[in-house]
Amino acid sequence: MRRIRAIVYGVGAMGSIMARLMLEKDVEIVGAIARSPEKVGRDLGEVADLGFETGITVANEAKQVLQDGSADIAVVAVGSYLSVMEEHFKLCLEHGVNVITIEEESFYPWRTAPSHAAELDRVARENGVTITGSGQQDLYWMNIVSLLMGAAHRIDSVVGKTSWNVDDYGPNVAAEVHVGDTAMQFERFVSEEGWPSFVVQNTLDALVASVGLTVKEVTPSVTPVLANAEVWCESLGRTVPAGSVLGVVDGATFETREGPSFTFEMAGRLYGEGDADYNEWVIRGEPAELRLWNDRVPTPFTTCAQVVNRIPDVINAEPGFVTVDRLPQLRYRAFPLGSYLG
Amino acid sequence: MRRIRAIVYGVGAMGSIMARLMLEKDVEIVGAIARSPEKVGRDLGEVADLGFETGITVANEAKQVLQDGSADIAVVAVGSYLSVMEEHFKLCLEHGVNVITIEEESFYPWRTAPSHAAELDRVARENGVTITGSGQQDLYWMNIVSLLMGAAHRIDSVVGKTSWNVDDYGPNVAAEVHVGDTAMQFERFVSEEGWPSFVVQNTLDALVASVGLTVKEVTPSVTPVLANAEVWCESLGRTVPAGSVLGVVDGATFETREGPSFTFEMAGRLYGEGDADYNEWVIRGEPAELRLWNDRVPTPFTTCAQVVNRIPDVINAEPGFVTVDRLPQLRYRAFPLGSYLG
Repeated sequence: MRRIRAIVYGVGAMGSIMARLMLEKDVEIVGAIARSPEKVGRDLGEVADLGFETGITVANEAKQVLQDGSADIAVVAVGSYLSVMEEHFKLCLEHGVNVITIEEESFYPWRTAPSHAAELDRVARENGVTITGSGQQDLYWMNIVSLLMGAAHRIDSVVGKTSWNVDDYGPNVAAEVHVGDTAMQFERFVSEEGWPSFVVQNTLDALVASVGLTVKEVTPSVTPVLANAEVWCESLGRTVPAGSVLGVVDGATFETREGPSFTFEMAGRLYGEGDADYNEWVIRGEPAELRLWNDRVPTPFTTCAQVVNRIPDVINAEPGFVTVDRLPQLRYRAFPLGSYLG
Repeated sequence: MRRIRAIVYGVGAMGSIMARLMLEKDVEIVGAIARSPEKVGRDLGEVADLGFETGITVANEAKQVLQDGSADIAVVAVGSYLSVMEEHFKLCLEHGVNVITIEEESFYPWRTAPSHAAELDRVARENGVTITGSGQQDLYWMNIVSLLMGAAHRIDSVVGKTSWNVDDYGPNVAAEVHVGDTAMQFERFVSEEGWPSFVVQNTLDALVASVGLTVKEVTPSVTPVLANAEVWCESLGRTVPAGSVLGVVDGATFETREGPSFTFEMAGRLYGEGDADYNEWVIRGEPAELRLWNDRVPTPFTTCAQVVNRIPDVINAEPGFVTVDRLPQLRYRAFPLGSYLG
C-alpha cells in the first residue's frame, strides 16, 4: 500500500476540516494553498487549527506548490461557479494532479456550464487525471435519493426539501443569500440581477442522469425567508430586524421527457432555537409513497467527510470530468485511504 | 434491445406481484412453477390475479419448465433457508438460468451457510450464470445504511430498527413468529429449539462486508412482543388474546475486528391501529450521529420492486453466487428491463 499525497487547495473552514480528516486517514499532505495574507507563510497546522505543526507552509503560488508536490490529488475548496474556478482546476489538471472539489457546479456541470466542463474534461483526459465534484450533494441530495428510487416500480414525482444554517458558513455566504436585506431590496435584486440557482439545479441534473432520464424543462424559483422577530446573525455580527431577509428557499422543478418530475427546495437561512439541518424526500408513483428523512444533519462536517471518503474513487477513476453518477457507491473508509487505490 | 425471458418460480403473494411488475417492464414470462394443486394447471394471469390471461400455465414440474423455457432468469420466491432452497436454485443454475430470490439467507450466505453457498457458487460458475439474493434487505436494511456510512469519518456503532406486519405475509409467517402462543410456550420453544435468526444476521453480514470489515463476534437475541389487549389476526383468522405473542423482535449485535459494532433489531408482529412499517438507523462516531428514517414503508411491495429492478444487474453480473455488495447500486428502471442488459 502506498500513501496518497494531497494538496489542500483553499484553507478555509471546509479545507481545514478536510485537512484533518485526510491526516487521520493516513493521507500525506504535500502542499497547502491560500490567498489570504493572514494565512500565507504560516504552517498549515496553525492555519487549520489542527493543534500541531505539519511542516507544510501555506503558500499563495498555486503553480509552485503543484510543481513541487508530486501530489495525487488536490482537494479544492475555494469558490463557487465553474467560470470562476476553471483556472484553478485547470492548473491542477495540467500538473497531472487529480481534483476533488466542493464547488457546486462541478457536481454535474454538463447542462449549466457545458463549455467549461468540456474544456476541463479535455484537459483532464490529456493529462490522464480526473476531476470530480462532491460534497453534501453526493450522498444526501443525490445518491441516497437515487438509491431510494430503486424501490419504486413507477415514479411520477420526486420531491426533496433540505435546510442549512447560514451561520455555519461565514459572512460571504450570509451576503450571498442576502441576510439582513429588506424584502423590497431582495425582490429588486432578483428582478434586476436574476438568481443564480446553482446547487439545486446541478443536484437535480445529477439525480435525473443517474437513472437515465432526460431533462425537458426547468422551472427555477427563489423565495426569501423573512424574520418574524429579530434574529442574531453570528456571521455578520449583527441583529437582523423583524421583517428582513433571514435567507432564501432556492428551488427548481425539472420535467423529464420520460414523465417523472423532480422538485428540490433548499432553504439556506439563519436558524432560530431548535432548528437543525434536515433532508426529506418523497417519491410518488407505485408504490404511492417512498419516504426518507434525515434529521439533525451535521452538514458542514458531512460535506467534508464525503469529499475525503471519495478521494480513492477519484484517483481510481478513468481520466476526464467524471461526475459522481459515474463513480462507485460512496463508502465509509475504515482504513488508510491509500489502501483503497485500485 | 432484446426482451428478458423470466420464469416465475413460486406463485405466492410475492411471486404474483413480481409477475405483474415484470410484465409491465416488458419482461417476457416463459414459465411459472408452483406446488399447490389449486394453482397448477391454471393460467398464471388467473393465479396471480393479473386481470388477464398470460398464456402461461402454472406447472409443478420445475425441470420441464426450465428445459422448455430458454429463460434468462428465474425469480424464486418459494421458501426460506438455503438448506431447503438449494435444490431449487441448483436446478435453475444447472439449466443455465440465472436466479434472483427473496430467500433471506441468500442475501449474504457466506458465514451462516458456507457449504451450501460454495456449492451453489460452483454450480453457477460451471454453468456461466449468477445467483443473487435481494428483497427488502437490499436497499432498506443494507445499501442505504452502507451509503449513509459514507458520510462518516469514524464509526463506533451502527444501530438499526425496523418493523413489519405479520398480517402482510399470511398464515405460515404468522406461525413462524409464534403469533398466539403464550409467553411460556414461546420461551419453551426458544430454549428447546433455539431461534433461527436469519434475516437480521445475513443483512448485517452484508453490511459489514460492504465496507470491508470482518465479523469478530455475533450476539443474537429474540424477544417476544406480547399483546396488551386482544388483537385480530387476519392471517390466522382468529383473535389473539391479551398477554399472548403478537410477534418477535429478532436482533443481533456484531462486533468487528476493526472496532465498529453493528446492531439490528427487526420487529415482526401484528399491528394495531396506526402502526406502519418503518426503518430507522443511527450511526455514531464522528460526526456524533448520522440519522435515517423511512416511515410508512410499503414493505411487501418494495420487496418485489427491488427484486424486479435488480434483474438486469443479475443477468449482467459475472457468474457465481454474487451478493448485492458486489453488484452496482440498485437503480430505478424507467425503461423496459431488457434495455439495461450490458
